Amino acid sequence: MLAQATIAAPADAGLALPSPYLLFLGDATQASYAKTAFGLRDWSGDRCLGEFAAPGGTVTTGLPRLTPVAARARGACAAVIGVAVEGGQIAESWILPLVEALDAGLDLVSGMHQRLSDVPALAAAAARTGRRLIDVRVPPPGIEVATGRKRSGQRLLTVGTDCALGKKYAALALARAFAARGVDVDFRATGQTGIMIAGGGMPLDAVVSDFAAGAAEMLSPDAADGHWDVIEGQGSLFHPSYAAVSLALLHGSQPDVVVVCHDPTRTHIMGLPGFVLPSIATVIDQTLALGRLTNPAVRCGGVAFNTAALDADAAAAVIARESDRLGLAVADPIRGGPTFDALIAACLG
Amino acid sequence: MLAQATIAAPADAGLALPSPYLLFLGDATQASYAKTAFGLRDWSGDRCLGEFAAPGGTVTTGLPRLTPVAARARGACAAVIGVAVEGGQIAESWILPLVEALDAGLDLVSGMHQRLSDVPALAAAAARTGRRLIDVRVPPPGIEVATGRKRSGQRLLTVGTDCALGKKYAALALARAFAARGVDVDFRATGQTGIMIAGGGMPLDAVVSDFAAGAAEMLSPDAADGHWDVIEGQGSLFHPSYAAVSLALLHGSQPDVVVVCHDPTRTHIMGLPGFVLPSIATVIDQTLALGRLTNPAVRCGGVAFNTAALDADAAAAVIARESDRLGLAVADPIRGGPTFDALIAACLG
Repeated sequence: MLAQATIAAPADAGLALPSPYLLFLGDATQASYAKTAFGLRDWSGDRCLGEFAAPGGTVTTGLPRLTPVAARARGACAAVIGVAVEGGQIAESWILPLVEALDAGLDLVSGMHQRLSDVPALAAAAARTGRRLIDVRVPPPGIEVATGRKRSGQRLLTVGTDCALGKKYAALALARAFAARGVDVDFRATGQTGIMIAGGGMPLDAVVSDFAAGAAEMLSPDAADGHWDVIEGQGSLFHPSYAAVSLALLHGSQPDVVVVCHDPTRTHIMGLPGFVLPSIATVIDQTLALGRLTNPAVRCGGVAFNTAALDADAAAAVIARESDRLGLAVADPIRGGPTFDALIAACLG
Repeated sequence: MLAQATIAAPADAGLALPSPYLLFLGDATQASYAKTAFGLRDWSGDRCLGEFAAPGGTVTTGLPRLTPVAARARGACAAVIGVAVEGGQIAESWILPLVEALDAGLDLVSGMHQRLSDVPALAAAAARTGRRLIDVRVPPPGIEVATGRKRSGQRLLTVGTDCALGKKYAALALARAFAARGVDVDFRATGQTGIMIAGGGMPLDAVVSDFAAGAAEMLSPDAADGHWDVIEGQGSLFHPSYAAVSLALLHGSQPDVVVVCHDPTRTHIMGLPGFVLPSIATVIDQTLALGRLTNPAVRCGGVAFNTAALDADAAAAVIARESDRLGLAVADPIRGGPTFDALIAACLG
């Protein structure tokens, strides 16, 4: 019953997710925990039809608020869990709304660590309704231990001063900008949202740790000399929970260029007030020191700021000031403009 | 050379492995790949009755070479896979000898990533003979994402310039020496061999990477002020395959003291001739820089040399020379002596 209902995301083959989507926002009250929903709205907006939530949820993507029945009537094919909670468990409070979605005739798509089919009420509802339970955070088979062998082609990895501050958006924007300049480029997704957007990738934080660097090697194979893989970063080397995922990705990606992502309004690691955010210079130094193990020529292409919390003038001012201070290209990839052009030029070298 | 002392497992450990053991050496031709067999011989020697191998295997532990039938007749209860191969898969050539062990009436104990029961021939033989298949490299349930919260008690972590050069032996010897000096101490195992020796622990490299630092936190919980956890290191921050496991263990262990383990005869990362071994000073600097994230007071207690390849005079000479050069306590914990006393004193501070 369950085996046929679970679909894994292969590293190099396309995911055919049923769409349009109805985005599920759980009981989130902070937008930062709904980054999957926002990522899909912003980068796969043509596939997003509306949103719904569990009782208590206050976050909104701005898409129409629809019941599962209403969304199905408008053509929705799947409810996508749009919240990314620490630990990746499916909350008790989500189960009733998700069963309601299955009953309305929607498939379920999830990027949680916990499998949808491991929740008895969801497995029963899927069996009863004949709907599919699709987990995208399932590593593909055949991941091997990393070798450290240098691969052909060029690689850019986004890294961060923290989690959840724009590494995926920066990578997507850079990949799009590279393509617009005629560069042969692939966006390589490493997290559940990126995988949903790209239709494939490697759920790096779901890989057994002995194989995590090997999984990163598998994600960006040998390529033509002029080809770029723009790889979505994960976590932060300075995050006490997730630094190991970041290091596996850094070593396995063997990037030629790293772009440090930063939110200039953030002072502490998100959710961990005891941990002060590292400086951008510290992150650059540590990333290059560790990255040299698998690519002695790794360099910092510049810094991507997430200035969503600032108005245009304040954003421009902090970008100019920090660019001067660091002596590096600094830009907000989402705002674009001449500073972003300079960042792209610095990355392409 | 080694006293046949068994390290007491922590009270909350609780693996009851059937013994005495017959150690299986696979088709290994290099002793470094049979480190599980040697570890059991050296630290649980009273439970080891003999050894057997697959065709082509040339490594020996020096224990009596016995067929499974002969070992069973002498009282053996389990065959233990004593080889640790990269990737942790059960080799095709091992299956016949392991089936022979089951047929002889022995249980099987394994620290491979691959589950014994996932090998059809072993599952069938176990069902036919009524013998048990015991996998020790299975993480416990309930591992959570790391919090970075400072815990009470003292912690020592062994780290290395490479894999497979003595981090487990150093931790076992330090724990035993601490206990001999009246220190309240637990050895905390993080790999399959250590877990078999201690009767419990955390198979860190088998934990999903998002939870690896959390698994290390779970392994060494809050303790009394004077209590020490001596934690077995894994991998190396400078190993392109396994550095992420090492970093998760460093962050989650939040050690007060690290001891750097090194083999003075090794020049390159084992099995990766393209990777030069990092210097001891580089490993100390990088370990302390990264370790400060979760314990700003982390310090290096000294250096443990594995001088098994040297004679006593050469070992003493290299230990004295490197101790002078580094300005740190350097000792071979297996040889012991005054230099080891100095290392212990430096660790206890």
